[in-house]
Amino acid sequence: MGSQPIEIRRVRIEDPFWKSKQELIRNEVIPYQWEVLNDRVPEAEPSYCMHNFRAAAKIVEQAREAKETGKVFEAPKYTYRGFQALPEDPRNPKDDEFYGFLFQDSDFAKWIEAVGYSLATHPDPELEKTADEAIDLVCRAQTEDGYLDTYYIINGMDKVFSNLRDHHELYCLGHLIEGAVAYFQGTGKDKLLRAAMRFADYVEARFGTEEGKIHGYPGHEIAEMALLRLSEVTGEARYAKLAQYFIDQRGQAPLYFDMEHPQAPGEPYKVDYYHQAHVPVREQSEAVGHAVRAVYLYSGMADLARRTGDAALLAACRNLWRSIVSEKMYITGGIGATHMGEAFSFPFDLPNDTAYAETCASIGLVFFARRMLQIEARREYADVMELALYNGILSGIALDGKSFFYVNPLEVLPEACRLDERKMHVRPVRQKWFGCACCPPNLARLVASIGTYAYTENEETLFVHLYMGSSLRKNGREISVESSLPGSGRVVVRVGACDGGAASVAESDRAEAASGREDACGAARPLVLALRIPSWCEDKYEVLFQVQGERVSGLGEVRDGYLYVTVPNQETVIELLFEMRAKFVVADRKVTEDLGKAAVVRGPVVYCAEEADNGRGLGELYVDTEYEPEVTGESAFAKEECADFLDVRGWRIVPEEKGAGFAGGLYRTWSGARREACVIRMIPYRLWANRGEGAMRVYLNRG
Amino acid sequence: MGSQPIEIRRVRIEDPFWKSKQELIRNEVIPYQWEVLNDRVPEAEPSYCMHNFRAAAKIVEQAREAKETGKVFEAPKYTYRGFQALPEDPRNPKDDEFYGFLFQDSDFAKWIEAVGYSLATHPDPELEKTADEAIDLVCRAQTEDGYLDTYYIINGMDKVFSNLRDHHELYCLGHLIEGAVAYFQGTGKDKLLRAAMRFADYVEARFGTEEGKIHGYPGHEIAEMALLRLSEVTGEARYAKLAQYFIDQRGQAPLYFDMEHPQAPGEPYKVDYYHQAHVPVREQSEAVGHAVRAVYLYSGMADLARRTGDAALLAACRNLWRSIVSEKMYITGGIGATHMGEAFSFPFDLPNDTAYAETCASIGLVFFARRMLQIEARREYADVMELALYNGILSGIALDGKSFFYVNPLEVLPEACRLDERKMHVRPVRQKWFGCACCPPNLARLVASIGTYAYTENEETLFVHLYMGSSLRKNGREISVESSLPGSGRVVVRVGACDGGAASVAESDRAEAASGREDACGAARPLVLALRIPSWCEDKYEVLFQVQGERVSGLGEVRDGYLYVTVPNQETVIELLFEMRAKFVVADRKVTEDLGKAAVVRGPVVYCAEEADNGRGLGELYVDTEYEPEVTGESAFAKEECADFLDVRGWRIVPEEKGAGFAGGLYRTWSGARREACVIRMIPYRLWANRGEGAMRVYLNRG
Repeated sequence: MGSQPIEIRRVRIEDPFWKSKQELIRNEVIPYQWEVLNDRVPEAEPSYCMHNFRAAAKIVEQAREAKETGKVFEAPKYTYRGFQALPEDPRNPKDDEFYGFLFQDSDFAKWIEAVGYSLATHPDPELEKTADEAIDLVCRAQTEDGYLDTYYIINGMDKVFSNLRDHHELYCLGHLIEGAVAYFQGTGKDKLLRAAMRFADYVEARFGTEEGKIHGYPGHEIAEMALLRLSEVTGEARYAKLAQYFIDQRGQAPLYFDMEHPQAPGEPYKVDYYHQAHVPVREQSEAVGHAVRAVYLYSGMADLARRTGDAALLAACRNLWRSIVSEKMYITGGIGATHMGEAFSFPFDLPNDTAYAETCASIGLVFFARRMLQIEARREYADVMELALYNGILSGIALDGKSFFYVNPLEVLPEACRLDERKMHVRPVRQKWFGCACCPPNLARLVASIGTYAYTENEETLFVHLYMGSSLRKNGREISVESSLPGSGRVVVRVGACDGGAASVAESDRAEAASGREDACGAARPLVLALRIPSWCEDKYEVLFQVQGERVSGLGEVRDGYLYVTVPNQETVIELLFEMRAKFVVADRKVTEDLGKAAVVRGPVVYCAEEADNGRGLGELYVDTEYEPEVTGESAFAKEECADFLDVRGWRIVPEEKGAGFAGGLYRTWSGARREACVIRMIPYRLWANRGEGAMRVYLNRG
Repeated sequence: MGSQPIEIRRVRIEDPFWKSKQELIRNEVIPYQWEVLNDRVPEAEPSYCMHNFRAAAKIVEQAREAKETGKVFEAPKYTYRGFQALPEDPRNPKDDEFYGFLFQDSDFAKWIEAVGYSLATHPDPELEKTADEAIDLVCRAQTEDGYLDTYYIINGMDKVFSNLRDHHELYCLGHLIEGAVAYFQGTGKDKLLRAAMRFADYVEARFGTEEGKIHGYPGHEIAEMALLRLSEVTGEARYAKLAQYFIDQRGQAPLYFDMEHPQAPGEPYKVDYYHQAHVPVREQSEAVGHAVRAVYLYSGMADLARRTGDAALLAACRNLWRSIVSEKMYITGGIGATHMGEAFSFPFDLPNDTAYAETCASIGLVFFARRMLQIEARREYADVMELALYNGILSGIALDGKSFFYVNPLEVLPEACRLDERKMHVRPVRQKWFGCACCPPNLARLVASIGTYAYTENEETLFVHLYMGSSLRKNGREISVESSLPGSGRVVVRVGACDGGAASVAESDRAEAASGREDACGAARPLVLALRIPSWCEDKYEVLFQVQGERVSGLGEVRDGYLYVTVPNQETVIELLFEMRAKFVVADRKVTEDLGKAAVVRGPVVYCAEEADNGRGLGELYVDTEYEPEVTGESAFAKEECADFLDVRGWRIVPEEKGAGFAGGLYRTWSGARREACVIRMIPYRLWANRGEGAMRVYLNRG
């Protein structure tokens, strides 16, 4: 049966928690990002993103002019200038050279995507003007035949698609599509969408199993899901076909990347695994390789499986999901246990201090989860989505929206990040911006479109996967959700009577009408709400139904962790009270790193202990699992929603130092230890490192 | 005052433990190594070591011939062919090309050094013949002016000494000297010694602070201590002066390696730290960089400080020693906590599972320790030397002498070594041989010369640093030591009466006489024994003196952990009974990796738990520190001395699996745990991985 994410313009987010995050994106990240794209932020590495579009546009215009005037145009001959090209004189970049990472175009695409989502619900004429001008420039950089990747336009198009494994052209295509669709959905303007379609057409003409076409596929996946989305938005089946080709062709023998790079069989990480291209995707059952690439691929696979009903593909998606969540996911929703290849490690290998757990990977996991939810509304997918959002993703951005984590470790000792080369990928405080700026814009596009993860729908059912204060219309009914999450577990869903078109809903009403879904109110189309019962409440919850102000019972039934309520035609209120006690959670005993340890969670929120509250030596702390952790009611950060400290009873083990020294001074005969009772103060993990540099641990020793 | 290591020919090792190790070296390692040097071991990577000497000898002979006949000789022009050069067709190496690592010459030097020591105490005409022939070949490869590094002789001598940082010429010189001296001391033959002197003279002429000379120093240290030894053996002060130049010049501004490699400021590890060349050596107080290089340098520094009485240099040696043993040494005597640069990590960073702890580094630590002992007989140095020997060094060689560890981790999960790229340097079982074969021959030369670490001496005092069954003569007295270590703590030292020249001592007698030390027996030169009281006995020991069969008392006094006994002129027996209880030892609380854990030691022997005895899940085991571990009397390996199992009472924590699942299946609400009492069976660490592949841990959780 399946469901679609709700169109972004139809949801209004009113939630204190999520609204503030969206405002952070709108007020801080998007404007800052635009400055970065234009190399106007002195403390950030220059992006050269818009510079490259200008340089490419010049070449494209010269070519056109030459053609029009019959002159000869000397196209640049391809020269490789490194994965990241920098100007010889950084103060004086040449205006006809490509700079930055070879996938730098995608920075614009990610920005325009966030802008599109933001404009969808928060009109901003000035921002829209800036965006339109940027789009004009980008479109000027597109070649006459539709190609649009400035790296090759500037460096020489004779080598396009010659290094699919490493050179990210199809990645840039994918992001361009995502950005163009978002901007179209947010503003109704299709200039960029048409440019993206032309680039997709260019690719479509060159790739395929047919003789004479390129039999390759993206080195960094994303085009798969992007093309499927483009197909849905435009109604053009050829884009879905191209996505299907990329998915089906991947990992077919002989392996394309090995043929493309015959000289590199012994590279540092296993290349084909790294790219999820070691076997055909339907035969993949273990999540391997670069974690972001992996979940982007799986997202595309899930989209395709939903579209085609391909049972083998769906089975692979389920297996890969299971591989991640049963064997390879941190309790924060982080994935990618090793920074070597930013990759999944082997099952149950989840080191806390050398974790990669890239923000982007958790975001990709949310993409994958929502797509699985669209196929089958099973709460596990939404549980994981919610977990990643409240923990391993929001940890990626500072409270002021101005600095970011790529890597989200579960245990940090700041000196190790500076001195231990195995941990140098871990940062003890968030960074201003990155040359390879994937995580901040990825965060921006996710948070700006959060409503499309909270809700999916089909003809009659609205699935509520995430609870957040918001309102929307469906099937002629005004629906509003009030949520106290993640602070506490109370949710109230109000559905207006069928004939109750209040003034306040005029806007979303129009949006629904515009999308062609709205019937006359009187037609009384049925409405089913599917309300998720989060697994963290351990099925301890109450539901109260009121119809027309009267208590009723027996309205709903639970399937796969969702409470399905067929909403009566009158005004209906559903109040959900989920038990949300703080508790200790332990990892499977196969996770050796976490043996003897426990994490503290409350609802979907994972907590951590910081040096700021507990001093040094977090490894000496033991939680007393006999006592339930206490919500203090005291907020760690005045302006942040749901940031209360949690106090955990425990003790610190302090070894006696009476024993004789052993071999030189670092060791000592065991002579017992004192147990000093203490209260361990914890904060939500997403908020760590907002008070300067210090040690942090998610897992504490278990008493 | 200081002391000298005893000459190797004067000590006869009769100890069941050490004798069996020496036999392993003599019967297995030395012959095998010779086969490897000649590329006759199919399962080992070819060495090309003797091949290179043959190729170089050909060039040198051609040059000589050309000179003699007045013909033109075209010397090869230098071409860089990589750090490790391999033949295009491995079955058919060209006989005029250099192959293998560019320091491959040193493999011969290490082999001849072990051979020299072995012949010193175990004559073997056949081996000596092989060695003499090898030496003939090596000497034929020496150029007329004394240069002797086949890498440049073959690849082009126009570039000698142009890459001191990476190209190991001075490292090869150092090993050549060590080998030549050992062979001279073992056999009295000086052909190789003279070749080494000529090479040293060549270097001496080229290096120095003077205008026109090279102001550099070794990239991989060893020449420093080797040249000082050469100076002592030959009496030529110029070699000591060259060593002093290398030591003094190191780290002087401007940094030589930075000038040599101006293009490489941003290399993966901090280059100058890696080479201990970041500041002048007297300003170094923290042990940093490549661990083997570091301790080789410190050994040379200690030799020089002893020779010159340089107080600043001695202070630096003491500081560096302190830095190692108080902050950077594993309980096994392993050093080098990170495989990134095979280097020291920051203070107290001693991860168990990603440890490098190279066998060679522990061997170098023994070199350093003995040199510090020569300066000042403080037991700490000997404690560490003994610790490294019985644990992190002997763990490097399998019981059958046929396979070896480079890396000596304190915790292993075999699948991680295969699947986790951060642990791929760790091997769960010993390997046959290595292309970069430093550890096996280093083990061979150390074990073959173990007597020179057990004993140092000065005019009147014999220092006994390590106890092992052995006999020697000094000052007209026959001394024999009987030791039950490492099995138990009983040591008996017998000193014959001054006039008691027994038949059995004839040989060492001759050796002493040969060395010019022997007075007429009647002259009654004084003899003091300095007997180490190991710190592991926590100063719980008994001493019994017998003179002429009669109990006496008050013969000795203890200073700095040594019992000084002025031996009466009659037959004297000293019996030492050191308490040697198994006990739990903990690391300083700053070592976060070991918090909440304990190691088990007995005497100088560190124990470990293996999967073979305890099943999977070693991380779930807790030792009960209330009970003393029990020596079982049951040997883990029938043929190995002192290999008894130790049984430790404890329990296994098995979490209940009643708690609700959390977010997808890998996590679960804590619902308590069962404590299953068990006996944890442990074996000496040095013996791990002799029963196939399995998990291993040194540190266990502490109950």
